[in-house]
Amino acid sequence: MKNTFGSALSVTLFGESHGPSLGAVLDGLAPGIPVDEAFIAHQLTLRRPSDGTSTARREPDPFVLESGVYRGKTTGTPLCIRIPNTVQHSDDYAFYGKARPGHADYTAYAKYHGFEDPRGGGHFSGRITAALVATGAIVISALKKKNIFIATHLARGCGINDRPFGNFAEDYALLSEKPFPVLDAEAEAAMKGAILAAKADCDSLGGILETAVTGLPAGVGEPWFDSVESLLSHALFSIPAVKGVEFGDGFALADARGSEANDPFRMERGRVITSKNSNGGINGGITNGMSLSFRCAVKPTPSLLRSQQTVDFVTGENIDFTLTGRHDPFIAHRARVVVDSMTALVLGDLLTQRYGTDYLGE
Amino acid sequence: MKNTFGSALSVTLFGESHGPSLGAVLDGLAPGIPVDEAFIAHQLTLRRPSDGTSTARREPDPFVLESGVYRGKTTGTPLCIRIPNTVQHSDDYAFYGKARPGHADYTAYAKYHGFEDPRGGGHFSGRITAALVATGAIVISALKKKNIFIATHLARGCGINDRPFGNFAEDYALLSEKPFPVLDAEAEAAMKGAILAAKADCDSLGGILETAVTGLPAGVGEPWFDSVESLLSHALFSIPAVKGVEFGDGFALADARGSEANDPFRMERGRVITSKNSNGGINGGITNGMSLSFRCAVKPTPSLLRSQQTVDFVTGENIDFTLTGRHDPFIAHRARVVVDSMTALVLGDLLTQRYGTDYLGE
Amino acid sequence: MKNTFGSALSVTLFGESHGPSLGAVLDGLAPGIPVDEAFIAHQLTLRRPSDGTSTARREPDPFVLESGVYRGKTTGTPLCIRIPNTVQHSDDYAFYGKARPGHADYTAYAKYHGFEDPRGGGHFSGRITAALVATGAIVISALKKKNIFIATHLARGCGINDRPFGNFAEDYALLSEKPFPVLDAEAEAAMKGAILAAKADCDSLGGILETAVTGLPAGVGEPWFDSVESLLSHALFSIPAVKGVEFGDGFALADARGSEANDPFRMERGRVITSKNSNGGINGGITNGMSLSFRCAVKPTPSLLRSQQTVDFVTGENIDFTLTGRHDPFIAHRARVVVDSMTALVLGDLLTQRYGTDYLGE
Amino acid sequence: MKNTFGSALSVTLFGESHGPSLGAVLDGLAPGIPVDEAFIAHQLTLRRPSDGTSTARREPDPFVLESGVYRGKTTGTPLCIRIPNTVQHSDDYAFYGKARPGHADYTAYAKYHGFEDPRGGGHFSGRITAALVATGAIVISALKKKNIFIATHLARGCGINDRPFGNFAEDYALLSEKPFPVLDAEAEAAMKGAILAAKADCDSLGGILETAVTGLPAGVGEPWFDSVESLLSHALFSIPAVKGVEFGDGFALADARGSEANDPFRMERGRVITSKNSNGGINGGITNGMSLSFRCAVKPTPSLLRSQQTVDFVTGENIDFTLTGRHDPFIAHRARVVVDSMTALVLGDLLTQRYGTDYLGE
Repeated sequence: MKNTFGSALSVTLFGESHGPSLGAVLDGLAPGIPVDEAFIAHQLTLRRPSDGTSTARREPDPFVLESGVYRGKTTGTPLCIRIPNTVQHSDDYAFYGKARPGHADYTAYAKYHGFEDPRGGGHFSGRITAALVATGAIVISALKKKNIFIATHLARGCGINDRPFGNFAEDYALLSEKPFPVLDAEAEAAMKGAILAAKADCDSLGGILETAVTGLPAGVGEPWFDSVESLLSHALFSIPAVKGVEFGDGFALADARGSEANDPFRMERGRVITSKNSNGGINGGITNGMSLSFRCAVKPTPSLLRSQQTVDFVTGENIDFTLTGRHDPFIAHRARVVVDSMTALVLGDLLTQRYGTDYLGE
Repeated sequence: MKNTFGSALSVTLFGESHGPSLGAVLDGLAPGIPVDEAFIAHQLTLRRPSDGTSTARREPDPFVLESGVYRGKTTGTPLCIRIPNTVQHSDDYAFYGKARPGHADYTAYAKYHGFEDPRGGGHFSGRITAALVATGAIVISALKKKNIFIATHLARGCGINDRPFGNFAEDYALLSEKPFPVLDAEAEAAMKGAILAAKADCDSLGGILETAVTGLPAGVGEPWFDSVESLLSHALFSIPAVKGVEFGDGFALADARGSEANDPFRMERGRVITSKNSNGGINGGITNGMSLSFRCAVKPTPSLLRSQQTVDFVTGENIDFTLTGRHDPFIAHRARVVVDSMTALVLGDLLTQRYGTDYLGE
Repeated sequence: MKNTFGSALSVTLFGESHGPSLGAVLDGLAPGIPVDEAFIAHQLTLRRPSDGTSTARREPDPFVLESGVYRGKTTGTPLCIRIPNTVQHSDDYAFYGKARPGHADYTAYAKYHGFEDPRGGGHFSGRITAALVATGAIVISALKKKNIFIATHLARGCGINDRPFGNFAEDYALLSEKPFPVLDAEAEAAMKGAILAAKADCDSLGGILETAVTGLPAGVGEPWFDSVESLLSHALFSIPAVKGVEFGDGFALADARGSEANDPFRMERGRVITSKNSNGGINGGITNGMSLSFRCAVKPTPSLLRSQQTVDFVTGENIDFTLTGRHDPFIAHRARVVVDSMTALVLGDLLTQRYGTDYLGE
Repeated sequence: MKNTFGSALSVTLFGESHGPSLGAVLDGLAPGIPVDEAFIAHQLTLRRPSDGTSTARREPDPFVLESGVYRGKTTGTPLCIRIPNTVQHSDDYAFYGKARPGHADYTAYAKYHGFEDPRGGGHFSGRITAALVATGAIVISALKKKNIFIATHLARGCGINDRPFGNFAEDYALLSEKPFPVLDAEAEAAMKGAILAAKADCDSLGGILETAVTGLPAGVGEPWFDSVESLLSHALFSIPAVKGVEFGDGFALADARGSEANDPFRMERGRVITSKNSNGGINGGITNGMSLSFRCAVKPTPSLLRSQQTVDFVTGENIDFTLTGRHDPFIAHRARVVVDSMTALVLGDLLTQRYGTDYLGE
């Protein structure tokens, strides 16, 4: 099922950037989960460009809870969130055939034979992630009540490193409110400077998002195809612009010795822990009760306000093409809340499988 | 479905290291695909330790085609390959409770409450990958007849780089026969030296596998959850010891500018190509007709013949524990054929979805 | 996935009777299928009470194509149809706890612990079938272009038999326009008379729907779990009030001899046919190229305007309870178009699996 | 996934009648379920012809537990049961092309283009149900420990009615041991007489199996596509020769009035019950805590030792064809244990979804 993901808890996506609406259906939610519309709105705000590092354009993203909520709580039946599009007309089809490099214009044509909606990227638009964020917010809320917390920061942006996670509770609180999710103020300032410089140069920049999840019990996930790494990477690579995912020390483990890569187990207050966490809280595909830790590489946004070589796949000619309009030179900070949301959806699914359909609402 | 993966073409795993048998059921295969038992055996050989870099132990891996093959060709009904285990008795349960660091002993206990089979790692054993290799071999053969070729080399091992892919046809031929899949002879010698040194030190080493797939048509894959990256990473992270996956330039794209990350489209002999391939042959989750390119980080094998700190999760005590027996100091080269196999299974699935159930057999 | 059904072509349901909207997401549709909004509206009309046999209440069922359609044709990406509810307020919750016999009030409470939306039956409302009809209409249109035609008549209603299918093309044309899908005029009059009598008696009646599908190629379906019977029955039993499904001669085959039950194969103009069709066009779970034939038993609507014994599951007391409001004494004729729609969704899925993702749009 | 069925608990089938082995992989089982090999063997015996009503042929059906069992209990990882075939050679392919009426010979050819294994029916053989029975036995055992009991009798055979279920505990005990599952001794004798007469006439007979399940909690199942009726019928129609399925009063409800069809709710010792059970223990697709009740129509076996009209689909000619060999004139009694097994698999899945992965093993 192409636009449906998840087993016990599943999400189904629909919509195009310039069609009437986009949205998602979240199915398998426990009954009785409080639906906090203000928190959904807050999460959608974190997905929007809202500071000097992004364009002035605003996407208000009002949302409608079409089903699955009654008296402020989930019913246990499918919850549909719909986000009406305010812009439904566009001149983009006038440029149809002119493949933007790094975009899906040409591959969409190869797959859909010209029937795809090209306006604003159609179904490929990053705007669709708003539906993931809105539904993810409900699961994030439910996980919090189980003392499971997800936080993501921009560990590296524009070639500049943020500091690592420190006191998780403090960092979590800080990141929850920050549209630009960097922990270190100097690093943040440097990144923003680099973004403005890239913007002036009609270019764009990428970064690495690092996520930590605390509070997961040991014993969640499966040995092979439904390993925590498998399911999370499946979800994370669904996010546009993500081109790499690593767990724990990830690619650095390729250069480590076994004696460095192994995390020694220890008893701590009657509980099994590991004394370090190079494996990201996962052994054999299953959570070990430590913090879940992973990183996503986000490529620079491909929309550049400069001339690029490409083709017109309708005429079959080589052309030079310059995009117009407003385009962000940086999107990795906006992808943060999408990463949090996809993480919540996967963990919500695994916990529902493990403990049954009422678990998240209890 | 925990041990079943795939949609139009699916694989279901079963088995433990020291149980009667392990194996896999491959369902959704087109009828009429020739089943080359010698090629299956060859692929299984590539998974075995067979040179000085690995232990002297031999796992002969004889296999039985239990169903789905008639007169040397696939029938179109489920194909079961079974690999009997020669060693079914083991003293491993005598050590039950002593969690090997980096292994799934503790997480299996957390999940299965002590009912898991601990002998030789049970269902978590890397030996189960033999079933993936055997079934993958059949799909690899079918893809070859469609001029789709998969090759993986050890791009980096023990901290030493192999040369990049050059002439693909030549490299493909070379790698197909090499148990130690390194293109550059000097790099190979250096890696083997490092492995022997690590072995002498009772330690282990990791590496990075790089895969290229040629011959895929444009237009395969889906925009969101079933993006080529999503499905491949799901499959690749199912392989034990894989802790990172990246497509195209991957994590390096996080540091690139958009003008560097974008791959310009060009017309070449009436066909759309890109003049470089930083995106690994995928735009918007869908193949663009260029070579598919990705890399997997393989952590060093966690089995070390040296004393390690850990716990006994039965008694709840901190202990020091030293493994005995034979253990490989390096497994990344063996994982190569598992990567090829999982890649074939995912691509076979996507092509069957796209073109129908007869496609791979035509 | 609880509210998602189908593999290559899937439908995801959402909505409650008195929430903001209900609808469905149809995913996996071929690109380029013409979307005929007038035909969708026509099909929705067939689902509405529109003659003397039903209540005077009208449900206008306006629909919105939220996604997946561009310039009048399917894009190949998810198509969402949303049907806003005009009545969102209700006094039904005032009666919460008083379980209507034959309804899901009590089982919903057992499953959702009181968090379910009780207004108008909530997610259990027959009104949700409008979403199935609207999405099914698009697939029905696509199948027609492949010369695959689905027709359902009320083979038995109120204890009165309709005549069997005769000339299929004529019967198909007749049924396509009739809100009360009975072929024989006398039988129709008798059924309508019986319905009015039942209404006067504050009671309700059921019937049997019989479906024929022509034009299917041989070789569609699977031997075991995805047999045509398995998938169709799964879909048909999803329709509220359906309590029996049989294929070909169905239950009558239990009393037949093998020599009567077998359908002899014959050559006819170079094509394999059967000289009769007791097996309903299916052998071994797979279509044999003959007309697909099956029947659904539809129980009488459980909403009765008379006093019934039941319980209040909130107070735990036995009570007598009399429904108020308008309720149809007969719904089997309205279920007809739901049966057609579910049949189209299943067949569209099987054909897409068999022939690939472009098939229905070609 | 064609030969995989189930969500939280799934079964994957493989095998042909005359290939090396057939079997099934059962995945998602709770850890710690005792595996009673004697009970598996007993269930397999019930599937075999073992009395005067069937042929003298014996299929010993020895089975091998290849994985998923350790020290007599399920591990929680995939459990593979394999049943080696003793007869692997056959002359059936000598008759290839001669389509047996009522069999899948022609539809298999239409689907698999001649690559199918024709020996003994290949993957379509009723013998494959042995794998369902063997795996189902394990789930039946686990359900019993939860006080959930499944019993099926031959409610009608050869046109003769058995008595209805009476005292369930007594009937359950009786049926558990009887190869010919008829409750009334006179009916049994009459049926057996009719079978022998049909045999003498080279003909075959069918019947209706009626199943009751006690002990299910209320609140299991889903409103729409995963209704208890939908999932059970999906599973039941996978059984060869089943051509009709009805729940509760089923087709008789089509002729009932609403006042007859509704089951009044009542309080009984603090628990909600219904005072009769015309709806078969299901309201709105969800269990209501009453006995689950359904019936399957089993057509007469199509293998007749008499001349039948058919075609040779290889030569394209009309022919008369007479089967040779031993063939049962009656199989409905043997299908009983397959119905019990499929029922257990579906209910085990629904309960695992509802209460989590440990539920059946606790």
